[in-house]
Amino acid sequence: MLIDYAFRARMDAPYAQALGRVKDTLKLEGFGVLTEVDVKSTFAEKLGVEFRDYAILGACNPPLSHRALSQELDAGLVLPCNVVVYEDGDGTIVLIADPNVIVETLGKPDLTGIAEEAGKRLQRVAEALAK
Amino acid sequence: MLIDYAFRARMDAPYAQALGRVKDTLKLEGFGVLTEVDVKSTFAEKLGVEFRDYAILGACNPPLSHRALSQELDAGLVLPCNVVVYEDGDGTIVLIADPNVIVETLGKPDLTGIAEEAGKRLQRVAEALAK
Repeated sequence: MLIDYAFRARMDAPYAQALGRVKDTLKLEGFGVLTEVDVKSTFAEKLGVEFRDYAILGACNPPLSHRALSQELDAGLVLPCNVVVYEDGDGTIVLIADPNVIVETLGKPDLTGIAEEAGKRLQRVAEALAK
Repeated sequence: MLIDYAFRARMDAPYAQALGRVKDTLKLEGFGVLTEVDVKSTFAEKLGVEFRDYAILGACNPPLSHRALSQELDAGLVLPCNVVVYEDGDGTIVLIADPNVIVETLGKPDLTGIAEEAGKRLQRVAEALAK
């Protein structure tokens, strides 16, 4: 079995409503949204092309991020955690990067425990959204 | 030899000045800065702790990002490209995530050419900053 690099959910809600619920559910697990890229607007503005509704959120749990960066300055290369939300017909797809897979890229065993903790929380977010 | 997951440069310039030069140099290679996390301020505000000057920039080349996302909706999990800038004594360290390594995580061979193109540009950015 291939290891998936993301927690995934499909929501039976239109994009704008789903996006709000994603942010609220992240908050319940201690993740604030530090950055937000509106991909559709960016492509329209920079390239003059149309694209589906698509957002890339940067989610951050401050205590876990602080532990990671205090141990390893390179950890900023994989922070904040990407959460992708996009329109899929009359529903919405949510992808949350799995910190366990992401942190493996860095090859720093000290970060494993932190990634596991973040991963458990983000998996709960995906499960709650899929309900 | 371990494969490094970042292009690295040390600049003999204080943080604030270096940060401006990083953004200008990214622009010359077609990368705009879509997001910026001021880690020091975030930790001070959310946790009340001190941290060194440290920024996480999200750099995006719109044509390359559009090609990636048109081929693979999962690509948003590794976009924009992280560029880390932090204070290191009287100089500044810059780390740019290598798209070749990052895209490997996704296991999508269709994205290899785009990652190579982005990687060449970002490597030139790191080389220019190290001068």
